[in-house]
Amino acid sequence: MTTGEIAQMLGGTLVGDGGVIIRGMAKIESAGPSDLSFVANVKYLAHLETTRAGAVLVAPGVKAPTCTAIEVNDPYFSFLLLLERFHPRTVWLDPGVHPTAVVAPDARLGENVSIGAFSYVGPRSVVGAGTQIFPHAVIGADVQIGDHCEIHSHTSLREGVRLGNRVVVQDGAVIGSDGFGFAPTPDGYRKVPQLGVVQIADDVEIGANTTIDRATLGETTIGRGTKLDNLIQVAHNVTIGTDTVIAAQTGISGSAHIGDRCQIGGQAGIVGHVKIGNRVGIAAKAGVPGNIGDDEIYSGTPARPHALWKRIEASLTRLPDLFKRVRELEMAVMEKKPRDKATS
Amino acid sequence: MTTGEIAQMLGGTLVGDGGVIIRGMAKIESAGPSDLSFVANVKYLAHLETTRAGAVLVAPGVKAPTCTAIEVNDPYFSFLLLLERFHPRTVWLDPGVHPTAVVAPDARLGENVSIGAFSYVGPRSVVGAGTQIFPHAVIGADVQIGDHCEIHSHTSLREGVRLGNRVVVQDGAVIGSDGFGFAPTPDGYRKVPQLGVVQIADDVEIGANTTIDRATLGETTIGRGTKLDNLIQVAHNVTIGTDTVIAAQTGISGSAHIGDRCQIGGQAGIVGHVKIGNRVGIAAKAGVPGNIGDDEIYSGTPARPHALWKRIEASLTRLPDLFKRVRELEMAVMEKKPRDKATS
Amino acid sequence: MTTGEIAQMLGGTLVGDGGVIIRGMAKIESAGPSDLSFVANVKYLAHLETTRAGAVLVAPGVKAPTCTAIEVNDPYFSFLLLLERFHPRTVWLDPGVHPTAVVAPDARLGENVSIGAFSYVGPRSVVGAGTQIFPHAVIGADVQIGDHCEIHSHTSLREGVRLGNRVVVQDGAVIGSDGFGFAPTPDGYRKVPQLGVVQIADDVEIGANTTIDRATLGETTIGRGTKLDNLIQVAHNVTIGTDTVIAAQTGISGSAHIGDRCQIGGQAGIVGHVKIGNRVGIAAKAGVPGNIGDDEIYSGTPARPHALWKRIEASLTRLPDLFKRVRELEMAVMEKKPRDKATS
Repeated sequence: MTTGEIAQMLGGTLVGDGGVIIRGMAKIESAGPSDLSFVANVKYLAHLETTRAGAVLVAPGVKAPTCTAIEVNDPYFSFLLLLERFHPRTVWLDPGVHPTAVVAPDARLGENVSIGAFSYVGPRSVVGAGTQIFPHAVIGADVQIGDHCEIHSHTSLREGVRLGNRVVVQDGAVIGSDGFGFAPTPDGYRKVPQLGVVQIADDVEIGANTTIDRATLGETTIGRGTKLDNLIQVAHNVTIGTDTVIAAQTGISGSAHIGDRCQIGGQAGIVGHVKIGNRVGIAAKAGVPGNIGDDEIYSGTPARPHALWKRIEASLTRLPDLFKRVRELEMAVMEKKPRDKATS
Repeated sequence: MTTGEIAQMLGGTLVGDGGVIIRGMAKIESAGPSDLSFVANVKYLAHLETTRAGAVLVAPGVKAPTCTAIEVNDPYFSFLLLLERFHPRTVWLDPGVHPTAVVAPDARLGENVSIGAFSYVGPRSVVGAGTQIFPHAVIGADVQIGDHCEIHSHTSLREGVRLGNRVVVQDGAVIGSDGFGFAPTPDGYRKVPQLGVVQIADDVEIGANTTIDRATLGETTIGRGTKLDNLIQVAHNVTIGTDTVIAAQTGISGSAHIGDRCQIGGQAGIVGHVKIGNRVGIAAKAGVPGNIGDDEIYSGTPARPHALWKRIEASLTRLPDLFKRVRELEMAVMEKKPRDKATS
Repeated sequence: MTTGEIAQMLGGTLVGDGGVIIRGMAKIESAGPSDLSFVANVKYLAHLETTRAGAVLVAPGVKAPTCTAIEVNDPYFSFLLLLERFHPRTVWLDPGVHPTAVVAPDARLGENVSIGAFSYVGPRSVVGAGTQIFPHAVIGADVQIGDHCEIHSHTSLREGVRLGNRVVVQDGAVIGSDGFGFAPTPDGYRKVPQLGVVQIADDVEIGANTTIDRATLGETTIGRGTKLDNLIQVAHNVTIGTDTVIAAQTGISGSAHIGDRCQIGGQAGIVGHVKIGNRVGIAAKAGVPGNIGDDEIYSGTPARPHALWKRIEASLTRLPDLFKRVRELEMAVMEKKPRDKATS
């Protein structure tokens, strides 16, 4: 495709040569003369001075001195559209059931299912049409998997777990492990039976080595369109709403309720039994000790409203100096009379 | 069973109708007319006004306006006792060795062992009576597993690891990976051989995708009855005592020693070579830089005694205001003479 | 060997009996009369008073009252040299391809490769000479593995991943999972194709259950000699230099660049798109929000230069007291005139 054709397809404005032939897509630092690239983040604007790309997608008004620019409202999203067109998602897995796979006689497989080497599908489980199960997945008993899902290697879908359609589970994720429930007794802890399940709605993605515990009773639920990154912990009886995005290594304690369209940074922690509203932002590494209402942004540990947290953080840098200032004031006011505490 | 029979069995006090027939157990929010539920946490007291449960277990004096109440000293523990009775723990795994499993000729299996599809038991390893090994577990060479253990899918029990009786290992856990030991040399880091093992005592539970490294020399040890949640890191040569409970995503660095009956929150971190006493509480997300004596409670990063940490945390919220107050004092005392630093 | 022979081999100074026969190596706490031990960390000096070891390696001038001492410049490194000599690294895996393993017809295996039970090697993948693949590893399509690597059980090496020589991957690690890229649209998040790969250089070690995402475009790269501990998250398009050491549970966000010879503590977090220089130290649990230049040491969240952070931390302990002092000053200066805010 030429830069002119691409500009037309995206409804963008061409600035420069419309005849440059584009054969691939690449990052701004490594793009060559037949690559299209993009700049969406201001941190990368400087690369426009030196890029060898054939063309770049930019926001309106951004200059690209070395190549053709195509101005679009959202360069990253336009890049994504083209990426899907230039590089359609393909999979190397063969269709059908690999001869080494074990599928229980009473399991039901939909049309066009791929099941990789050594994968295991347990009694009474159901795998929907077009779903791909990579080598070494373990689907326990009574599991339901919808249509067009992608279940990667070494995932464990434990007994009774239910997945909607188009769910992607990255390698090594565990869905349905026992919740962490132990009752103290005079003779030590006693395991609380974990009798519930995990219910995952359509269009959810679960990251590599993430763990989602089954409910003690009832369900641990992940709502439609929600995306979980790698190494996340979701404890028993947690409820997560729709279209919420959670970054890697975050932990959500038992029975917490998280709303819709939230954005939660990496390594955050949320204590048990709290209620997080809709469209809430939680910063990376924040530790959330209580409820948060809709549309709030929280940061820090213990998490505070972001604006307050920023003021505190700014104060901290000047805190050692504040001690000096108070000491000077004391000297001035108290006329050098000795204080109880010498260390100030 | 009727509510009257349950009250008698638990030694509790019946408040209301003793003839309600109970067929199952459920959470207070979702319980129906033939379900028994419970309220142990004050956060859930409000549900008593609206629950549709047939009966609830409550602490003495707590009112249940909509249904029969059974007053007991510990509603959660009583609920647990009944849960075990109504829903005995069952497993879907078939008895015996699955035809696809590989068991080394010199491995020894106890009576009534179940070994799932594709599981591997290495040379000279021993599996005790009644132990269940789910599909896709890997037991390396010279591993010892006691009686009545539950080893879930995708676990790795590396060479030489030893497990006691009734140990539960959730999916994807790794026990016996190499410790993280590298000696700096002028040519880069050089791997320190990790020659030790991991020793896990009776009644321990290890969470999903948790990792426990082998010792460099000697043993990494987890004491009787200790429970580890998901995604925990236990480094080489760590010692953890008995009946200690550690929540998800906590990390314990090399050669740390943790005592008995400790409670450690999620995402906590403990540096290497420290000694944590018995019955110590460590708050979620705390970062412990040094030793802690018996019966202490620590919070924050770096961790401080909990009472001190709370005072500091309370002060922080008022810190930006303190800067204003000091500035006002300076204006009053110094009679507006200019300071060096304009930003205050 | 005798203590005299060992002292000579290490070029050390013998203090005491040169005729003690050493048969093994052990930790200072558990060493017996025919064991050699060492003390490198001052925390362990007290053990020298009571050790039952036959001999100890110590720094010059350190006294060992109970046994023969061998003084060397770096006791830990000397211990390591001997450890490798007394306990050469061995592996229990049989040579050759296990009959249950599945190797794609067009995969290529080098000489002396070991492939364990149930392992899977996908289409067009290459495994270098002397590489050991333990049971239950999954090597996807088009993967390249160099010579003398160690790939442990339950690892996933996803399609297109490339490993150099002598790379060690501990159990359960995932290399090449999809990057966490989703573009917001009015209908929810839309998955960004993750088309890049992961490139791992020679002599790298990857810890158990660590996850390394493939690049969106291009490569996620880990440089020569770099060592990653367990449960680490490396996001898409991250670049890590050579000989950098990263402790467990640290997370590195997308497109971050980390230099050579850095040392990063456990549970640290690094935000996306930042540049960390060479020889940078980042403390455990630090949260790094921006770029860091060469040779800096940062601590805390948000991370600050270590010296500043230490001053702030020291101030915090005295912060509650500072409030009291300011209140006293206000009383003195303002002559008890009422303030707006009663809470001080």
